[in-house]
Amino acid sequence: MNTGPEHRLLQVLGNWMQHEGPLYARLAQAFTLAIKQVDLPPGTKLPAERRLADMLAVSRATVTQAYESLRGGGWVQSRQGSGTWVGSMSHAGLHPAPPGPRPLSSGHFFSRLVDSSPRSPLNLSIAALSDTDEIFRDGAPFDLEDLLGAPSHGYAPLGHPLLRQMVAGIYNRAEAPTLPEEVLITSGAQQAISLLACHYVQRGDAVVVETPTYAGAIDAFSRAGARLIPVPVGSSGVRLDLLAEALASAKPRLVYLMPTFQNPTGAVLSEQARQEIARLADQSQVPFAEDNTLAEISFGAEPPPSPLAHYARGGTIVSIGSMSKLYWAGLRVGWVRGSESLITRLGQHKAAADLGSSMVSQAIACRLLPNHESVRTRRGKLLKSRLDTLERLLRERIPEWRWRRPEGGLSLWVRIPSSDAHTFAEQALRHGVAVTPGSSLAPDDAHQDHIRLNFVVPEELLDTAVDRLAAAWRTHRSAGGPEREAVEVKV
Amino acid sequence: MNTGPEHRLLQVLGNWMQHEGPLYARLAQAFTLAIKQVDLPPGTKLPAERRLADMLAVSRATVTQAYESLRGGGWVQSRQGSGTWVGSMSHAGLHPAPPGPRPLSSGHFFSRLVDSSPRSPLNLSIAALSDTDEIFRDGAPFDLEDLLGAPSHGYAPLGHPLLRQMVAGIYNRAEAPTLPEEVLITSGAQQAISLLACHYVQRGDAVVVETPTYAGAIDAFSRAGARLIPVPVGSSGVRLDLLAEALASAKPRLVYLMPTFQNPTGAVLSEQARQEIARLADQSQVPFAEDNTLAEISFGAEPPPSPLAHYARGGTIVSIGSMSKLYWAGLRVGWVRGSESLITRLGQHKAAADLGSSMVSQAIACRLLPNHESVRTRRGKLLKSRLDTLERLLRERIPEWRWRRPEGGLSLWVRIPSSDAHTFAEQALRHGVAVTPGSSLAPDDAHQDHIRLNFVVPEELLDTAVDRLAAAWRTHRSAGGPEREAVEVKV
Repeated sequence: MNTGPEHRLLQVLGNWMQHEGPLYARLAQAFTLAIKQVDLPPGTKLPAERRLADMLAVSRATVTQAYESLRGGGWVQSRQGSGTWVGSMSHAGLHPAPPGPRPLSSGHFFSRLVDSSPRSPLNLSIAALSDTDEIFRDGAPFDLEDLLGAPSHGYAPLGHPLLRQMVAGIYNRAEAPTLPEEVLITSGAQQAISLLACHYVQRGDAVVVETPTYAGAIDAFSRAGARLIPVPVGSSGVRLDLLAEALASAKPRLVYLMPTFQNPTGAVLSEQARQEIARLADQSQVPFAEDNTLAEISFGAEPPPSPLAHYARGGTIVSIGSMSKLYWAGLRVGWVRGSESLITRLGQHKAAADLGSSMVSQAIACRLLPNHESVRTRRGKLLKSRLDTLERLLRERIPEWRWRRPEGGLSLWVRIPSSDAHTFAEQALRHGVAVTPGSSLAPDDAHQDHIRLNFVVPEELLDTAVDRLAAAWRTHRSAGGPEREAVEVKV
Repeated sequence: MNTGPEHRLLQVLGNWMQHEGPLYARLAQAFTLAIKQVDLPPGTKLPAERRLADMLAVSRATVTQAYESLRGGGWVQSRQGSGTWVGSMSHAGLHPAPPGPRPLSSGHFFSRLVDSSPRSPLNLSIAALSDTDEIFRDGAPFDLEDLLGAPSHGYAPLGHPLLRQMVAGIYNRAEAPTLPEEVLITSGAQQAISLLACHYVQRGDAVVVETPTYAGAIDAFSRAGARLIPVPVGSSGVRLDLLAEALASAKPRLVYLMPTFQNPTGAVLSEQARQEIARLADQSQVPFAEDNTLAEISFGAEPPPSPLAHYARGGTIVSIGSMSKLYWAGLRVGWVRGSESLITRLGQHKAAADLGSSMVSQAIACRLLPNHESVRTRRGKLLKSRLDTLERLLRERIPEWRWRRPEGGLSLWVRIPSSDAHTFAEQALRHGVAVTPGSSLAPDDAHQDHIRLNFVVPEELLDTAVDRLAAAWRTHRSAGGPEREAVEVKV
């Protein structure tokens, strides 16, 4: 079991394998970077060599050499009997992040996104499709002048007026009546969550989230200083009994939920559960944010047709949407739907944050949205076929893993018979495939026996990916955890 | 003179004229909105009727009617002898912004950006060109697939690799050696400032800014909870003696400066002054952020060729740049240049904020930047001609206004013989032209005898704009301030 500080250390080290040189040097570089960035402040105690070797699935010799190199550079100090800690050398020019309960970006998440090493692994850890051709072929080549229409200075903190109108139309069709003034265009759902955090959360406030949940939400709320109150997700979505309990006991400032194709579990709330949640929102007068980012990625039993907003009674239900999953994340187009006064407020935060999103992306979004139904069908077909392949390969090659087939979304939430999925994820990375350990998606460091696999890459790559996963799994199992520097990095 | 609370009230009311109906109803609507958004919390005292009439350049009858309408709606309460204040009706569902020294977005700035009324005034208050045709004609029509290159999932929190490289090239050519890893792509300079605020500023920290300065910087730092320490800008840029004093006395966490074509004054720091500032940064060990957003908009004497970063000694100098002014603000492409460890930190904030900027915009930026010199020349020519026209028209029609001709940038910083430029700006708006009152650009509510005029609109519109300004000025002067509901709204 990873304990809290150890889990945090693994996050801080992130994708340490991406550095250059022999293993010990890569590890030392990751430590140096973390110390420079004050992710590991002076005085931080480092794990014993044997323990770190186990955590990272490397030999003890690797850790010994890394620590020696760090001592040589003056980064850490050791004393016989009392261990190794980060030294107190001058940190002039280095500025720690503000203090908070969980100040770090989810290290795994971030490092996978910024990994630009030439030997990038097969990536099953990012929930986004790369297949842009089938999205853009309907309109390409875009004539930029034609696309942008009348000359404009280009600033629109609340969003492109036509796009606001189109997004309002999406909700109107789902029977959640919406005016364009009730829509704020954001740079993806991530910014929507981040602006809600700016608006609602002050340091120390409680925010209820599902566990497991979206890593970017953990990040945004944590950075705003929130105390995260986890409520478990069952096979039919968030546990309503525990949600009601959390509302009563934690007095949260905000609740963040994914009613449809929950990330990562794929769970869907029934119509009845939606009604019950709307009632809880009304009763508690706590604002509920529903993230519908994955709601349109459907390839099985259709989910209830309406978002939580449709069921709203007196309470505040704010809806978050995005074009990142159905269309392309590189557009960075998402939105928030809420009351006009909330939207104005969030718009002021947005103006201070970036003065508005790319008008080019928004203009492209306006061209794409009228093709919505056809894109939805094509994406569903594509993803169903990839999920079928992934399931078949996993059943064949790693029969002891377990999961529940989702009816939509981009992720398979897999239980592996190991209590140390983080170490397995490290092992997988060394075999050339990136997966997300469950603990990265847990506000409570739970789910250490789960990994998330996104079925976003083409079938032929899935085949290679599962081959590598099977090899990594054999190593992980046979070594009873750590392996002995025997496996070469194959990427 | 506007006092602090009155100035804040004017910011809160923003562009109240944009509402519908007779004047009193528009004013009442602006109050209602501000009360709903808790910009005016319960208990806030409103100005006496006569005073508010003076502040807004309307008749007292207008204010009397507006207050009556607010009382009727239960929004405010009045008592003979003790005045009028915001009522304590239930605010369930309304959520105030976190407390802070200046929690409001610069109301004027924001309301001018979101004004979508069909009768929008001629806008001299936004420092951005709308002339996109001459920018995009070099490359249009863009083929989107060709533009985007190899398939990608679209997430790149640190920015498009090629764009990071190109931006590094800009600094290398200006003799500030830079690696791509030392560049973070942001959604405009506004996001660069906002991320620096996230990283450096904790509630209550002092941040040194110029006065006057960029309203968006006031906004971003204030929202992060900064205490703003103003240092005046003279004809040759920020006053170095007062800057040194502020560093010694305020112990700031960050200094924010515009060395070249300072917004709004157009002032340029000499090479010697840059050296001196680099020395102050080194000596104080306070990080200095230089905003070079306007540095390339040059049409007179060329400024020193290098940013502050070129002169850096031991201190931390962070550079901010943008494509919004030379190219187009609708791209939302800007950047930060700093040490790799700072860039990684800011990238983590960026990931939590929005997971990265539009890849479409970034790909277009990569196409545009190689035309840099030609765009720079064309833009300079265009703006010089507009500035010439604006100066000629102002000299002819409003001879008592005074300014210093800038050698670059987008703004004329005009001293008007009135101590109430905010009221004049309201008057101008009623005549159909938007200008920025100096106090909106002042962290210290100073510059109440200044307005900023951006010479960004075509010559024929400048002619109309100055006609309206002259009429507004006559009214403002002849009425000795407030006018008597006589002028019709002409937009």
